[in-house]
Amino acid sequence: MTTDPPTREDPVPSARVVGDLPTVDAATAAEKVPAEATLFVSGFGGVGYPKVVPEAIARGDDRTLTVVSGGGVGDEIDAALVESGDMARRYPFQTRPAVREAINTGEVMFHDRHIAGVADDLRFDGLHTGLRGERVAVVEAVAVGPDWLVPTTSVGNTPAFVRAADRLIVEVNATQPLDLARVHDVYTRGDPPGRDPIPLSTPTERIGSPAIRFDSDDLAAVVRIDRRDDPYEFRDPDDSDRAIAANLRRFLDAEIGRNPLFAEAVTLQFGVGSLGNALMGALTELEVGDRPLVYFGEVIQDGLLDLIDAGRLSGASATSLALSADGQDRLFADISQYANEIVLRPGDISNATGPIERFGVTAVNSAVEVDLHGNANATHIRGTRVVNGIGGSNDFVRNARLSIIALPSTAADGDVSRIVPATAHVDHTDHDVDIVVTEHGVADLRGLSLRERPDAVMSVADPAYRPSLRSYLDQVSERTGATPIAEDTGVDP
Amino acid sequence: MTTDPPTREDPVPSARVVGDLPTVDAATAAEKVPAEATLFVSGFGGVGYPKVVPEAIARGDDRTLTVVSGGGVGDEIDAALVESGDMARRYPFQTRPAVREAINTGEVMFHDRHIAGVADDLRFDGLHTGLRGERVAVVEAVAVGPDWLVPTTSVGNTPAFVRAADRLIVEVNATQPLDLARVHDVYTRGDPPGRDPIPLSTPTERIGSPAIRFDSDDLAAVVRIDRRDDPYEFRDPDDSDRAIAANLRRFLDAEIGRNPLFAEAVTLQFGVGSLGNALMGALTELEVGDRPLVYFGEVIQDGLLDLIDAGRLSGASATSLALSADGQDRLFADISQYANEIVLRPGDISNATGPIERFGVTAVNSAVEVDLHGNANATHIRGTRVVNGIGGSNDFVRNARLSIIALPSTAADGDVSRIVPATAHVDHTDHDVDIVVTEHGVADLRGLSLRERPDAVMSVADPAYRPSLRSYLDQVSERTGATPIAEDTGVDP
Repeated sequence: MTTDPPTREDPVPSARVVGDLPTVDAATAAEKVPAEATLFVSGFGGVGYPKVVPEAIARGDDRTLTVVSGGGVGDEIDAALVESGDMARRYPFQTRPAVREAINTGEVMFHDRHIAGVADDLRFDGLHTGLRGERVAVVEAVAVGPDWLVPTTSVGNTPAFVRAADRLIVEVNATQPLDLARVHDVYTRGDPPGRDPIPLSTPTERIGSPAIRFDSDDLAAVVRIDRRDDPYEFRDPDDSDRAIAANLRRFLDAEIGRNPLFAEAVTLQFGVGSLGNALMGALTELEVGDRPLVYFGEVIQDGLLDLIDAGRLSGASATSLALSADGQDRLFADISQYANEIVLRPGDISNATGPIERFGVTAVNSAVEVDLHGNANATHIRGTRVVNGIGGSNDFVRNARLSIIALPSTAADGDVSRIVPATAHVDHTDHDVDIVVTEHGVADLRGLSLRERPDAVMSVADPAYRPSLRSYLDQVSERTGATPIAEDTGVDP
Repeated sequence: MTTDPPTREDPVPSARVVGDLPTVDAATAAEKVPAEATLFVSGFGGVGYPKVVPEAIARGDDRTLTVVSGGGVGDEIDAALVESGDMARRYPFQTRPAVREAINTGEVMFHDRHIAGVADDLRFDGLHTGLRGERVAVVEAVAVGPDWLVPTTSVGNTPAFVRAADRLIVEVNATQPLDLARVHDVYTRGDPPGRDPIPLSTPTERIGSPAIRFDSDDLAAVVRIDRRDDPYEFRDPDDSDRAIAANLRRFLDAEIGRNPLFAEAVTLQFGVGSLGNALMGALTELEVGDRPLVYFGEVIQDGLLDLIDAGRLSGASATSLALSADGQDRLFADISQYANEIVLRPGDISNATGPIERFGVTAVNSAVEVDLHGNANATHIRGTRVVNGIGGSNDFVRNARLSIIALPSTAADGDVSRIVPATAHVDHTDHDVDIVVTEHGVADLRGLSLRERPDAVMSVADPAYRPSLRSYLDQVSERTGATPIAEDTGVDP
């Protein structure tokens, strides 16, 4: 039996463990991780992350670890390693309450990084002294061979991790279908200055292989596991989500009908989360005429399966199948069929600035709050407490041709306005935010000066907060003769 | 005699006005501009802009104009049209006191836009209702033919303007050498979603032509002029500039010696201005070993001619020869020789995200102020008064592999700290700023959490301001249990 890696033509591995590879239990594998180490873990969008080895590390000796993931991972990492006291540093994104709390109390040092840049951060010292000790990659695979592995429900930074690691531990997960190999397209970029453009001519073109290659000498352990992802659970769309979706759809319908950007295709991206999921699902009614509707984004959520099932989507490119448990069931039941529509890429390809710009993507992302000039805070509540991190949102907001921030106008059951005089933290600047959509309407900021933007943004605020926003503007205008930019903060009705 | 456009092989036009084209005086040309119009003007970095036609427009009937330039232009536009009351809106950048004052009093509506995106803004409605009335392009050329022109000292957005305009007025400037055709490389991108990657395999490769083509029916007037640019004047480097340059050079020397980013080449960009000019000039002593030192930036300033003259530079790509009058004299005296080293491209190529990222550019830009987390304000003084606009700085800061903000630690003769607790406006976010350099040292922020960054940034503040910055941090930390992000502003020693 061949031990060669699967290929694009023949993608499905013949077995879980190919070749004469010994397997060990998780505790034995965990011993390969030294007391001070950088732990690279697979996983993105809450799926495809290693489970039993991180838990075994947490149960083992005390360690001081820098943990770097693709994107969001499970509590097996972001709770277990925090509670055991082993996690000292964390990049580039996280979503679990345990790690978030540890970051916000100062127990874990965290910096959120653009997803597209993390692979290069590893090659070119972008995290500098943050990467400490020996570098060990722990990655989940549907199958492994002597010098290759096939990822599971996400690709994320796994190719970059495997390349950067001194040693590699693979968890082969029997609950993840071998047919997932059909969706993967692993392409590795060259180095600057002779780096080629990413050779994607369409959003769903395949340019790589289903397998990630590694140096066989680096393989330190293979562990068999039989446990599913513990993915995000989306809440059902509520009235606010539906109103935002309706406003977004109305805006897009008009724009598609008149903007030459949409002459040949409608290429969209949606941010991660329940609102993004609801917005994706609402696009079944989008009026695209005979144009193809294509998704070029970071994650595929349940709402996108709805679009595929409705026959509305020509294809989808992402780095993660960030589905609910139900969504995974749905996908796994018909994976060979879905693989015709879906491509998963490494995060430095799915989110790469070049293709986003070349495909003319329309990006729809959410935010914690938006200010009167259209600056968006996507990461910090009250300026001091980080939520998840910037993730790939700015990769798309900054490089999309049309960039939309969609958010409810209030939080905390209406007690807090998400439209604020000035954001306490800025992730997306006024230079990059074209459109703001709430349940109250659409603010089209394109071409407006900073003096004109406040009126437009206020028009989509909750009506209860508009008088105080107006009063704030009037006061600043009187005091400075100018429109305000972050001279003050805090608006209460 | 042929009226064909010059080619890459034979770039220098045979005459100023080629073919049977009538010329008119500026007043006659100005009559082609209707009462409400969008006026696209050539010019970038304070050079290569039209002069007599804008002045004639200012002297003529009252108009309501949206004025869009490549970058910075002369007082013939940004003072004359403001003082005449004709300028109602302005994009995407400006540098002259008259227009800045009118923007800050609310007389002129202005929004600063990323340079790389302006060409697409025109194709795909990125400025929306800001572009009003008929679209007239007024551009300076060294030569014009029936359906082509060759730009002068800058390319900027001229190809995009000529394409987007309903009619075209050309000023043929006899003071600009015909040999400038040798430096131009005009390449026009296709449209999304089938847009190709920009086919540059090296920073200085030539992929276009010296001429910009237009529809001969659009040519409304040709005006001969004989007047030089009124360019920026750089101040001489002072002690602070020299100290910043020394710190930058020391950092780069160490980085070049150890970071694989520099294994094959050192590819740099510097921001516009006296500091950028001084920093460029100081690089003659950079220790690059046998690596080529290449410039892939937006403007070529006098300091870069120093590098070329010293035989230190392998080549330079930009969109503008933003030279002083002396620098222009120096360039014009030896233009054929300099044309071997220098390429001028359209702004959507010089600043394009794809090549910046592929070449692994190290970007060095300045800012008004930097906060304790590394967020940089490049555009607004005290949050309310715009300076010049973001220009191309974020094209480079965001897409460079290594991004450096270099600035003096104080302004106003030491009365104001440029290191602040929180910036009043954010142009470059903490996700994008790797290094902060002042005359007091180098803050390396790579991999540091937001809790760790303040100590690093404070270490390069003026010592007189460090106690108040520390006191601010302590207060916020006590109140919130967290490191501050824009909870408050204002630091006075």
